[in-house]
Amino acid sequence: MKRYAEALPAGIFRRLDHIGVAVADLEAARRRYVDLLGFVELAREALPEQGVEAILLDAGNCRLELLGPLGEASPIARFLDKRGEGLQQAAFEVADLDAALAALAERGIRPLAPPSRGAGGLRICFLHPRDTHGVLLELVEYPAASPR
Amino acid sequence: MKRYAEALPAGIFRRLDHIGVAVADLEAARRRYVDLLGFVELAREALPEQGVEAILLDAGNCRLELLGPLGEASPIARFLDKRGEGLQQAAFEVADLDAALAALAERGIRPLAPPSRGAGGLRICFLHPRDTHGVLLELVEYPAASPR
Repeated sequence: MKRYAEALPAGIFRRLDHIGVAVADLEAARRRYVDLLGFVELAREALPEQGVEAILLDAGNCRLELLGPLGEASPIARFLDKRGEGLQQAAFEVADLDAALAALAERGIRPLAPPSRGAGGLRICFLHPRDTHGVLLELVEYPAASPR
Repeated sequence: MKRYAEALPAGIFRRLDHIGVAVADLEAARRRYVDLLGFVELAREALPEQGVEAILLDAGNCRLELLGPLGEASPIARFLDKRGEGLQQAAFEVADLDAALAALAERGIRPLAPPSRGAGGLRICFLHPRDTHGVLLELVEYPAASPR
């Protein structure tokens, strides 16, 4: 079995950029994922616009992000109320966010909200989970010539 | 910001191998993820031992697996009943499954069940979600010199 292609040839999605885990207590989650599971911390960032405080962990070929709620209208708080802690989102890198959204719109796949800024100041956009079998699928655009 | 390391230096987990999405209707999910979202299908496999029928999609640097319920005692069916469709698991490659489980056990992190066989006949083991902030975290061991 072929495991994966390293980079997709012509599709909308280039590669998985990160997965996000909703956690109630960011410090407790950091201790577990870093001190016990052995993931290396890359960065920590508060994203008030997203209602999220994030700890970015190195997962080798992508990142694992621990996402704690920030503020009253946090989507993480809503997720925790509804489902409890666990996998909350999967983010894929696209070459051109606007072109990707246009191609998806032609196929009837809707954004959840207009593009905004995510961790690292990157342009991001979430797709509607009703259009992705329940997955909160994020699109991430890196600036050209961004280091890996 | 450093995006990721390509391969983790000394930790238990080498890289993200795949994420799994629980879906009620595997054919409908395949049409959406392949025909509309543009992922390339790598393989399709029934895994009665896991209570899963899986469609493996290329996600560039890892795989996206669509997981439909198979049989009465399917964990996918239980997941769908409880949470509906969506992200169900995240699987990380380890060099040596038994060594990884021993190291985790020393840190109080428990397997959900003994190791078994997953897609491609690979040895796998799930960790207890109570020990990972709600993530159904799978460990995958590839045979030495396995092609990527």
